[in-house]
Amino acid sequence: MTQAPTPPILILTEAELRAAVPLDLAAVDATEAAFAALARPGARMPPVLSMDLPEANGEVDVKTAFLPGFDAFAIKVSPGFFDNPRLGLPSLNGLMCVFSAKTGLVEAVLLDNGYLTNIRTAAAGAVAARWLAPERVETAAVLGAGVQARMQMIAAHLVRPFARGWVWARDPARAAEAAAEIASATGADIRVAATPQEAVSASQIVITATPSTTPVLQAGWLAPGRHVTAMGSDQHGKNEIAPEALAAADLYVCDRVSQAAAMGELRAAREAGYLPGPPPELGEIVAGLRSGRLTEAAVTICDLTGTGAQDTAIAAHALAAARAAGAGMALPR
Amino acid sequence: MTQAPTPPILILTEAELRAAVPLDLAAVDATEAAFAALARPGARMPPVLSMDLPEANGEVDVKTAFLPGFDAFAIKVSPGFFDNPRLGLPSLNGLMCVFSAKTGLVEAVLLDNGYLTNIRTAAAGAVAARWLAPERVETAAVLGAGVQARMQMIAAHLVRPFARGWVWARDPARAAEAAAEIASATGADIRVAATPQEAVSASQIVITATPSTTPVLQAGWLAPGRHVTAMGSDQHGKNEIAPEALAAADLYVCDRVSQAAAMGELRAAREAGYLPGPPPELGEIVAGLRSGRLTEAAVTICDLTGTGAQDTAIAAHALAAARAAGAGMALPR
Repeated sequence: MTQAPTPPILILTEAELRAAVPLDLAAVDATEAAFAALARPGARMPPVLSMDLPEANGEVDVKTAFLPGFDAFAIKVSPGFFDNPRLGLPSLNGLMCVFSAKTGLVEAVLLDNGYLTNIRTAAAGAVAARWLAPERVETAAVLGAGVQARMQMIAAHLVRPFARGWVWARDPARAAEAAAEIASATGADIRVAATPQEAVSASQIVITATPSTTPVLQAGWLAPGRHVTAMGSDQHGKNEIAPEALAAADLYVCDRVSQAAAMGELRAAREAGYLPGPPPELGEIVAGLRSGRLTEAAVTICDLTGTGAQDTAIAAHALAAARAAGAGMALPR
Repeated sequence: MTQAPTPPILILTEAELRAAVPLDLAAVDATEAAFAALARPGARMPPVLSMDLPEANGEVDVKTAFLPGFDAFAIKVSPGFFDNPRLGLPSLNGLMCVFSAKTGLVEAVLLDNGYLTNIRTAAAGAVAARWLAPERVETAAVLGAGVQARMQMIAAHLVRPFARGWVWARDPARAAEAAAEIASATGADIRVAATPQEAVSASQIVITATPSTTPVLQAGWLAPGRHVTAMGSDQHGKNEIAPEALAAADLYVCDRVSQAAAMGELRAAREAGYLPGPPPELGEIVAGLRSGRLTEAAVTICDLTGTGAQDTAIAAHALAAARAAGAGMALPR
């Protein structure tokens, strides 16, 4: 048996990936395609492989998905080591490995240190806003001031170019920092809110991006015509939105029911006895299989836990962009 | 917060890894240490992440383990795409990613295309032989003639330097090829057997390394003083050894009970009503927590399905060897 010539393996560093993959509409479209593909027959997304490392105050998650119509699939490794900041290191890291969907051969290794996860997570918020937020959004708010809080606002602005925004966070100095960064990226007028309620009540889009384990968004705060994207609850035990708010919403949507029921907002809501039935997944709405927002006055909530489908899509997107730019180093197989 | 300087990421190709990591006693010792560590408190080995891709006649497995006393852990991705030979490509591929056990930072990417999996799998067979085979082994046999069948015999010879050996396989030409390769590597007199029974009945060590789904090794063939290592059953549905042989053995050992019960020889044996209790794991024997072979006349069977612990250990071993050799390319984080 002669061995066919095989293409080299492309290695890309974080710097190369940052240059090739900005947070833009192309990233949003790639992520949207992932959600649609996930709703199609033949898509496969196994449960997250998760390993707790309590001695190191750490954990590692591995996510993947095989999506019909994609030439490749990614396997993403996300370590989170929460004592790292004491060492001057980031808590979150990781890489993505890209494999041919036809042969299983390694095509590329994306040494992104978690950068592409940030992009695909923010892009998923934009997909949710595109399909679920009211058409007219004057004001958006974010609860939280971390990297993802900032990126979520910038991503939402790509699809709903709001003129004003609010940031609330427990630390006002960090909130001010985040507001300045979002304002600089979007050109919108972004201010710091004194309370979460002040931020929420003025806004058509509300993003929750905190590590909270008790609700920061209460049920009575959501007037008609609001959309909420919750993306802080990516771990067991987290909870940002009061279960009553989920119960009261006209539409609750999640990225993956099995994940949302285990570690998303859906978990606390179901523990409180709400939402016993199967909610729609975002991909089913993108694919036209289930309905999204029905009226401008509806209250919608999208619960994002982060899926391997997004990883496969952003990796394919990044690899195409890097190849087009001639970036990276090709190693012999 | 200032960022501490972080070490670069080392990228190693298959050629570099083949040069740095031969199948030798150092690889066997590294693998043995993995089994011992797996039996210690604090070891963690989550269930294998497995994704079937029937459209491509493929599958992907992800394995990992965190082992006390190891500075790093590996996450290994093993794609198996079984139509690849038609394309002139190998069925099995993959890579290992190595992470710091203290910070979760990526330390290295081992682009081994499955080479290190072959090494750690063969090395596990040698660990089993070291702890379970009779002290005096004149003759060893292997059923199967693939890469792993050959490497298992070569590895067993490292710990039990047999003078004679037998190879049986359905295809006599491939059996002859395997016999020549094993003879060349070990210096032993290796012959092709006409039947599996001929190979088995003459040998103190018997290795099964076939993809069979019906038993190739029957119960009545195992005279006193035999050790069998079964390493073909690494997938659901495979079965190399008659359940009655497992039931009749003085000692049945596996690498991981949860895996052996799902996809090892233990599965078929339990379906037949044998071995209902928890058998010892190889690591418990290496660590001195449970007994191995008690008499020279005992019949022992070791059922290997392949563990993430071996992957972590061989990756650490390979990384140390590559660093000592100055191999690989260091990329900026």
